[in-house]
Amino acid sequence: MDSQKIHMNGGDGPNSYANNSEYQKQLVGYSKKLMAELIEQELDVGIINSGCSLFCVADFGCSVGGNTYLAVQNIIKAVENKYKSSELDQENPQLQVPEFLVFFNDLVQNDFNTLFNYIHGNKPNYFTTGIPGSFYGRIFPKAFLHFAHSSMSLLYLSRIPEEVLDRNSAAWNKGRIHYSSSGAAKEVEAAYADQFRKDIQAFLDARAQELVPGGLMTIITLTILDGVLPSDSPMAINFTILGSCLQDMANMGIMSEEKLDSFNLPYYYTSPMEFETLIKTHGCFDIIRFEKLPTPLRQVVIDVQTAVLSVRVVTEQLFQQHFGNDITEELFQRYTEKLDSHPLLKDDKYRTDASYFVFLKRKTETSEPES
Amino acid sequence: MDSQKIHMNGGDGPNSYANNSEYQKQLVGYSKKLMAELIEQELDVGIINSGCSLFCVADFGCSVGGNTYLAVQNIIKAVENKYKSSELDQENPQLQVPEFLVFFNDLVQNDFNTLFNYIHGNKPNYFTTGIPGSFYGRIFPKAFLHFAHSSMSLLYLSRIPEEVLDRNSAAWNKGRIHYSSSGAAKEVEAAYADQFRKDIQAFLDARAQELVPGGLMTIITLTILDGVLPSDSPMAINFTILGSCLQDMANMGIMSEEKLDSFNLPYYYTSPMEFETLIKTHGCFDIIRFEKLPTPLRQVVIDVQTAVLSVRVVTEQLFQQHFGNDITEELFQRYTEKLDSHPLLKDDKYRTDASYFVFLKRKTETSEPES
Repeated sequence: MDSQKIHMNGGDGPNSYANNSEYQKQLVGYSKKLMAELIEQELDVGIINSGCSLFCVADFGCSVGGNTYLAVQNIIKAVENKYKSSELDQENPQLQVPEFLVFFNDLVQNDFNTLFNYIHGNKPNYFTTGIPGSFYGRIFPKAFLHFAHSSMSLLYLSRIPEEVLDRNSAAWNKGRIHYSSSGAAKEVEAAYADQFRKDIQAFLDARAQELVPGGLMTIITLTILDGVLPSDSPMAINFTILGSCLQDMANMGIMSEEKLDSFNLPYYYTSPMEFETLIKTHGCFDIIRFEKLPTPLRQVVIDVQTAVLSVRVVTEQLFQQHFGNDITEELFQRYTEKLDSHPLLKDDKYRTDASYFVFLKRKTETSEPES
Repeated sequence: MDSQKIHMNGGDGPNSYANNSEYQKQLVGYSKKLMAELIEQELDVGIINSGCSLFCVADFGCSVGGNTYLAVQNIIKAVENKYKSSELDQENPQLQVPEFLVFFNDLVQNDFNTLFNYIHGNKPNYFTTGIPGSFYGRIFPKAFLHFAHSSMSLLYLSRIPEEVLDRNSAAWNKGRIHYSSSGAAKEVEAAYADQFRKDIQAFLDARAQELVPGGLMTIITLTILDGVLPSDSPMAINFTILGSCLQDMANMGIMSEEKLDSFNLPYYYTSPMEFETLIKTHGCFDIIRFEKLPTPLRQVVIDVQTAVLSVRVVTEQLFQQHFGNDITEELFQRYTEKLDSHPLLKDDKYRTDASYFVFLKRKTETSEPES
């Protein structure tokens, strides 16, 4: 399966990502203070080019909603403050608050029209562009960016590992749609983990080239806590239930068994330890901060309709692309019924996931990754 | 009327701009050789920042189709050739062909989703971004661009002059939809001309700030030849016929008289002499070339359906925004019938328009326009 087509539900209707991403918004709020503090502490105001007073920011995996706008606002405000306080130092008489050029990145299938309308409606005080393309490859010129940001995007794999869909492989995930699904083989998880490792390597390679030396990067991502089995995560429950709904529909002849077996979801939930190790091993970035964020409210108390919508806005396109547009109403109806009778939303033992805030700095002295 | 919403028909259906812009494509073809020759002659390879080897190109008013892609390809090819030939000179041992970052600009309502899909499908050898916003204001940081391009976009005014819609003004254009329409007062034309002058001033002010000293700019625009009355142009015939169709529909009660009187089309067709004078008067750009392009084939022989479509794809959105979606089928049906019985498409006396290719260079020594 080509996962290059992952994108959130577009537009601004009731099933849109733009109107159903409160969880992500809360994470942006939690990270705001951390971001400001670390930018003040770590940003070298001398990293912008002496020729022009320009500071370039990119949001990797922006989707279409207001969260990307909020996150960028927080970054720019903090950078401005840093420049203003540096002006007062009078050590740099030439120094001035730079102009900002912000690049909103997502896959080419993302709904950039909705994004642009939203951003422009807010009359930002920076220059705004959209830059389509996979962030697992180079999308910017060399040494061009001063700040990179990515929130809740690195859990999307660039592709489904081939073995998972191969009936001759030990990692064949027959009848299931995710490595965390109940009963999935260890080999399936290993194949996903291997793909994640390759993807993070590719992401860091590309960003290491695109960021100027001393450039900063923040990553917010969802993890499953160290030591927790994937099958004990809340995602596992969701994907096991969704998988069983699809299996029911296959049994009823609504889709073929083969169609179901050729589908898996391209999400990987790393653990804090695994993620930190991958960044350290890569070698081009210093880890300035690696911190657990508070649990967004959605996980504390939530009704089933909200829970279903929050899953639907991020997964629906994937189901539609593979199974066709006609099945999603029935799928999510079945999912709602099964989820409603499951203890997932009520029982604290499923709170095994956590979002992490990671603040990185591009090293200045390391060797370049290959171009 | 707020003309900030001018955009071509989106998507790639039968009524889309993408599939009905052969005329514009031919103009890109005609200018290719000129572009290559002048870039070779005028580009100072030293204008890119010594810190990073990056060349920034922008297309102002890109719309959604393949023409913008072709034009940018021609520019990049010519710039690459210039750098390659300069390498051979061995005067600049450090010199290398730069990376290219291309910005496709249009109003925020433009269909960027279709544009991005098209560009990505062609796997360009440069980094691609979309930058939404009116090119009559600043949309880029200072001294950031090395090459600006704009084809057939400067004939769209930023707004309809207020007097034209004001029943107390001598410039009120009652019952007509354009200054070129048969019977329009001289004051209407003057109001349009004044708006055009302000718009060109604003465009050149913004580009003068955004281009580096020595930066290049090409403009292709449609003119009415010097000495020709607006009412003797082919556009005048089209807009007079379209206006009379709307008047017929108002007489039948399909729309109100007031609705019709509050509508005018935001196009202005300059003359070569007027346009050249405005650029010279502005003062920030040297005119390297100001040349008439050959007449695209569409003007030599054309069938009525093609003629109607070529007008429809650029005007339909404007009619829909003002009169609602329901009237356009009937409007263009009536227009087709009237156009078919008019000598416009057959008689050479209406060939009074011509496209011009303008090649400009940002002066290095002039005072900056105000920011």
